[in-house]
Amino acid sequence: MPAWMEKSDLPGGWITAEYALLPRSTTTRVRRETQGLSGRTQEIKRLIGRSLRAGFNLGLLGNRTFIVDCDVLQADGGTRTASVTGGYAALCLALKDLVEGGSISSEVFLSPVAAISVGILSGTPVLDLNYAEDSQAEADLNVVMNQAGEFIEIQGTGEGSTFSREVLDTMLEYAESGIQQLISKHISDIS
Amino acid sequence: MPAWMEKSDLPGGWITAEYALLPRSTTTRVRRETQGLSGRTQEIKRLIGRSLRAGFNLGLLGNRTFIVDCDVLQADGGTRTASVTGGYAALCLALKDLVEGGSISSEVFLSPVAAISVGILSGTPVLDLNYAEDSQAEADLNVVMNQAGEFIEIQGTGEGSTFSREVLDTMLEYAESGIQQLISKHISDIS
Amino acid sequence: MPAWMEKSDLPGGWITAEYALLPRSTTTRVRRETQGLSGRTQEIKRLIGRSLRAGFNLGLLGNRTFIVDCDVLQADGGTRTASVTGGYAALCLALKDLVEGGSISSEVFLSPVAAISVGILSGTPVLDLNYAEDSQAEADLNVVMNQAGEFIEIQGTGEGSTFSREVLDTMLEYAESGIQQLISKHISDIS
Amino acid sequence: MPAWMEKSDLPGGWITAEYALLPRSTTTRVRRETQGLSGRTQEIKRLIGRSLRAGFNLGLLGNRTFIVDCDVLQADGGTRTASVTGGYAALCLALKDLVEGGSISSEVFLSPVAAISVGILSGTPVLDLNYAEDSQAEADLNVVMNQAGEFIEIQGTGEGSTFSREVLDTMLEYAESGIQQLISKHISDIS
Amino acid sequence: MPAWMEKSDLPGGWITAEYALLPRSTTTRVRRETQGLSGRTQEIKRLIGRSLRAGFNLGLLGNRTFIVDCDVLQADGGTRTASVTGGYAALCLALKDLVEGGSISSEVFLSPVAAISVGILSGTPVLDLNYAEDSQAEADLNVVMNQAGEFIEIQGTGEGSTFSREVLDTMLEYAESGIQQLISKHISDIS
Amino acid sequence: MPAWMEKSDLPGGWITAEYALLPRSTTTRVRRETQGLSGRTQEIKRLIGRSLRAGFNLGLLGNRTFIVDCDVLQADGGTRTASVTGGYAALCLALKDLVEGGSISSEVFLSPVAAISVGILSGTPVLDLNYAEDSQAEADLNVVMNQAGEFIEIQGTGEGSTFSREVLDTMLEYAESGIQQLISKHISDIS
Repeated sequence: MPAWMEKSDLPGGWITAEYALLPRSTTTRVRRETQGLSGRTQEIKRLIGRSLRAGFNLGLLGNRTFIVDCDVLQADGGTRTASVTGGYAALCLALKDLVEGGSISSEVFLSPVAAISVGILSGTPVLDLNYAEDSQAEADLNVVMNQAGEFIEIQGTGEGSTFSREVLDTMLEYAESGIQQLISKHISDIS
Repeated sequence: MPAWMEKSDLPGGWITAEYALLPRSTTTRVRRETQGLSGRTQEIKRLIGRSLRAGFNLGLLGNRTFIVDCDVLQADGGTRTASVTGGYAALCLALKDLVEGGSISSEVFLSPVAAISVGILSGTPVLDLNYAEDSQAEADLNVVMNQAGEFIEIQGTGEGSTFSREVLDTMLEYAESGIQQLISKHISDIS
Repeated sequence: MPAWMEKSDLPGGWITAEYALLPRSTTTRVRRETQGLSGRTQEIKRLIGRSLRAGFNLGLLGNRTFIVDCDVLQADGGTRTASVTGGYAALCLALKDLVEGGSISSEVFLSPVAAISVGILSGTPVLDLNYAEDSQAEADLNVVMNQAGEFIEIQGTGEGSTFSREVLDTMLEYAESGIQQLISKHISDIS
Repeated sequence: MPAWMEKSDLPGGWITAEYALLPRSTTTRVRRETQGLSGRTQEIKRLIGRSLRAGFNLGLLGNRTFIVDCDVLQADGGTRTASVTGGYAALCLALKDLVEGGSISSEVFLSPVAAISVGILSGTPVLDLNYAEDSQAEADLNVVMNQAGEFIEIQGTGEGSTFSREVLDTMLEYAESGIQQLISKHISDIS
Repeated sequence: MPAWMEKSDLPGGWITAEYALLPRSTTTRVRRETQGLSGRTQEIKRLIGRSLRAGFNLGLLGNRTFIVDCDVLQADGGTRTASVTGGYAALCLALKDLVEGGSISSEVFLSPVAAISVGILSGTPVLDLNYAEDSQAEADLNVVMNQAGEFIEIQGTGEGSTFSREVLDTMLEYAESGIQQLISKHISDIS
Repeated sequence: MPAWMEKSDLPGGWITAEYALLPRSTTTRVRRETQGLSGRTQEIKRLIGRSLRAGFNLGLLGNRTFIVDCDVLQADGGTRTASVTGGYAALCLALKDLVEGGSISSEVFLSPVAAISVGILSGTPVLDLNYAEDSQAEADLNVVMNQAGEFIEIQGTGEGSTFSREVLDTMLEYAESGIQQLISKHISDIS
């Protein structure tokens, strides 16, 4: 998940993301989106972009645009949350070079960001569902949080099902716990 | 917000939605989307479709597809949640005719559905934000629920801001209260 | 039918129009034109634009472009001629503000413009055909004129039929009479 | 201007036309329309198609679709009216073979069709304007008629100008005279 | 095959080509490419452009872009090689005027360029195959060369067949001989 | 480079290929082709498809279509020839399963296929050029051959340069030698 930087003529910085499934990243081959992006892809790339922008002080980026390319080689489970977590890590690595080189202030880093999916499977909450679990879950929630415990995005989409407030609360707790683990194990040492 | 019905050759029914802003529905004219739908429009029409499908037993619709056209004449505040609430009412009216005519079972109606937006403005929760409030809110949540108090969709998107679990809980309570009012005042008598 | 104004860098002004049928403006739902405009829509928007430009001294508009949005909520009869007449009225209202505010000369108004359709139904000329009449007419003519009695556009399109010079003359007389009535009753007091 | 025939599964026949300017058919090179047809091209191809269909009894064509390709090699003057006249001739030649071969009834031919443009130049009516005349004309009318003297299409488009009823009558007379000459000299012997 | 010149703001010149089959240039009508160019068309226009650029010193063209339009009126045989040869001649004629007028140095002309196709038919090499020969050839080679005997492009595409080194050598010899004939007979007197 | 199989209703089989550069496969990020494929991409995918089809007896594939996805993760040198060689290997692996399972005859395999690029760098022939070499080569040739020593495709494209027959002969010898090495080392044991 590489991060690419471009100079622009506008003041202030920007972070954006692109997302694609390789045709054989899935069990059944998916078509390339060569004639316009699908609604699903646009929804996901916008979610990733908003989530990544919440992790950095855009005003300190200078007139630089960062593009994070999330190309999924193997799609098993929550590709949009994995894209947020991996994309945040890629941006940290790219920005650390610029911070160490003195071209960007170290205050560009806000509280570290990660994301995870959580579902209810036969009444049991399950974190980071794989493809088989995801297709049988009774409820499904994507959560983006930072290390400070603040929410950046929550998306609970219940196509064909509904969920109670109690289930929502359980899922939020699982998600928070999972995200803090992701950050402490994989993110905090590079951010 | 009219509902249109088409026969298909497939067994089972389907509900879908389309969404568009009229060019002068907004303070500053928006361009028509005549060369492909924007990411925002696709995101919204998918949300409306999923929400409406949760209000009906699709298996009882027969091989009928219902298209709900959400064309916004004046955009002041949460047009996506207004589209869900209004679209649900339009579908109820259309289906009541079919139920009364005997071509669809009255069990097609599940628990009535409505949606609302809620935000935090200078620390105070505000329901159903208008345009001016929406552009200054510190946090923003769209909620779709049914009369049974079950969640269908929640989308909290915090571009440029974050929100705590406590604020999320407050917003969820306001949303639930607002949705139940919408249903009891406007929806329950037609569904 | 709102008129929207934009500043441009070019000297001289311009007036243009857009046209769309809302999906349920018609008896049978029409598809949205989200992948390019149809030939019919392009033909109509060009006719409206040419007709509206004939009503004003473009050289006095300054470097302003006016866009008239003709979104048809209910399509019963001649929507293209109704768009010309209504669009002209909308432009007059918009320009009166600018003239009264002193930013545009009052000489921008040329002779007032209106449009009407006329057909032959079972041998009888009929003005301003509705949908049922239009689909049975033997001949069909759209006319755009100004109050001075000069023609701006005439379009007689006889798909599947032909019409004699005598019938054309009768239709032109009916159209002229109808247009002068439209202008004197609805247009002349606002232009 | 070749006519191409395709078999279809539908009962009854159809005639359609396509129109394009070769890039160097004009004094200043025009771009190819490879990303969707312009409004002008769509308007013209629809006019040609309607005009050609008025010259034949479509019910006698069998389930055949005829496509007339109007590719303009040199554009000097009224290319849309030349396309109607030439396209009618091409269709006659194609249909005569089918009539002589016995697969289509000779009653497929209705009254022969031709088209011409007429304008007013410094107060004088001018038939079949060339490019230089067309760009200076005060009024401009395209007329499609048959040998029986019936009108099929009239299009008077006065971008930037208007014309009186008297001028219209003069232009109609010139057009009728020109069309009857075209038919008697070039069309009647092949139809 | 006309050559069109445009001024650009960039230093140095450029030569590019466009290619299209008229719908009835072929035995069976081909569709117009109005919704994006096919792979075949793009492949051919790129080949023509590269070949033509090899015939001129681009640095001496000044900031001019030349567009060569290759519209095929009748497609019998190697239309891509005919487009190279004809396009080179068109460019020579256009550039001679500019050289004679003193705006471009006469050193802009490099060694003259032409192209030809060659195939193997029942074991016999055949130069400049026509449509009937081309569809039965066992091997097929397109060659672009200059008068100095240097290769500019060779494309041997053997869909459904293969060819030995010996056959390749024979085809190359025939191609060279044919190209030198084309240049000496048709090209050398205008370049 | 995975191979994907689809059943079709047509008799006989087919092999096709798709090709894309991941945005960061290159030193400078390339844009995704989401609004139609570029000419370069179409040219390459057609070359790969033709080359792969030459390696198999399509008539023995049954009504199956194989799609080979060539997504370049790191682009250093001849990606089109690497796609042919790798795509051939992927197809062999896929077909061996079908042959061993008895659904396809083992005679589906024709002579094994591979491809390589060769160039001239400061007068010295270089096989399988990397990016740095490729951008400085004086001549460049892509060759597709089979183990029997027959040519399937040769493409010598000399944008900005030309090459003599002697240089072409040298490059062909190097290419043949390289391809036979590729086949004997990497391909022959899996085909």
